[in-house]
Amino acid sequence: MSKKQTALLIIDMQNDFVLEDAPFRIKGALEIVDNVRAVLEEFRSKNFPIFHMARVQRRDGSDIEITRKESFSKTPFAVEGTKGAQIIDELKPKENEYRVKKIRMSAFFNTDLDSILRSLEIKNVVIVGVQTPNCIRTTAFDAVAYNYITYLVEDAVAGQSQEIHQANVLDMRNIGIRIIKTEQVEGLLK
Amino acid sequence: MSKKQTALLIIDMQNDFVLEDAPFRIKGALEIVDNVRAVLEEFRSKNFPIFHMARVQRRDGSDIEITRKESFSKTPFAVEGTKGAQIIDELKPKENEYRVKKIRMSAFFNTDLDSILRSLEIKNVVIVGVQTPNCIRTTAFDAVAYNYITYLVEDAVAGQSQEIHQANVLDMRNIGIRIIKTEQVEGLLK
Repeated sequence: MSKKQTALLIIDMQNDFVLEDAPFRIKGALEIVDNVRAVLEEFRSKNFPIFHMARVQRRDGSDIEITRKESFSKTPFAVEGTKGAQIIDELKPKENEYRVKKIRMSAFFNTDLDSILRSLEIKNVVIVGVQTPNCIRTTAFDAVAYNYITYLVEDAVAGQSQEIHQANVLDMRNIGIRIIKTEQVEGLLK
Repeated sequence: MSKKQTALLIIDMQNDFVLEDAPFRIKGALEIVDNVRAVLEEFRSKNFPIFHMARVQRRDGSDIEITRKESFSKTPFAVEGTKGAQIIDELKPKENEYRVKKIRMSAFFNTDLDSILRSLEIKNVVIVGVQTPNCIRTTAFDAVAYNYITYLVEDAVAGQSQEIHQANVLDMRNIGIRIIKTEQVEGLLK
């Protein structure tokens, strides 16, 4: 039996960032839910490792970026224990899937993600979620730095505008990140 | 006497990336040399801390990103001990300035930069050099993650094209990085 060396990283698909009336709604987020779900189901059906990454902040803002401290005190988001911090219902993690909390953009920053990926002997990561210029891109660049072969599912990630999204996809392509579509994920999971 | 809480990070202004005939020449690099030099002289004249960051790889490629291993074996760059890895003559570090080697894009990745900045009680970092979408941006985003107030001197950083440069400056502005011009650096160093 061949080893399962490819992991899925779903980034920040949380109520506060995705729902129509969310305070920190990312404009393209709702549109990618079906594709993220399709990628997730593909990983589930082949039994490959799945990581649900979520930004979760302490209510007092003590773990927020210093540059965001003031705005967070007025309009907090992704606060521990709130509905806003939860992953959207459509993508609800299953018991056997990994949940990793983060307090910064990159899924690798001050988290145990890299340690778990190494223990699982993962070589490739597939990234989906929001939003392209921030949490997606920092995670993708860090994944490259940590020597993972990195796939970005371009129709399962989104930002505030198509223009920003496209400019970021170009930069990621230029450093060797493999840009694929949802329908190509199946071919990776052999 | 007020503490000097602002440090300059000069990124990758090395022969292999800057010189006209360099194998990994970044198109906009030569044009920013005068501005980088002006910022450097400003920090020198006020006696604020200066960090010269340089990508330096082992000749056998054992420390290069796995995704670049093949191309590096054919066309190595920034190899330890070569002229190509050296900082360009115009920006040659002085004895009392910090030199930090890195093997990845971000100046913070597997380096002692953050430790030194903390020991110096630095609160603000000013970033110049090349290239905007890669080493500059990863360094700037990491600086924000590490809670530094981050300034990007937009006419002292460059990429392969103005379009890529501008798109990246926009994303950095959107996360709260302060975008300034060379002439504004003087005002920061009080």
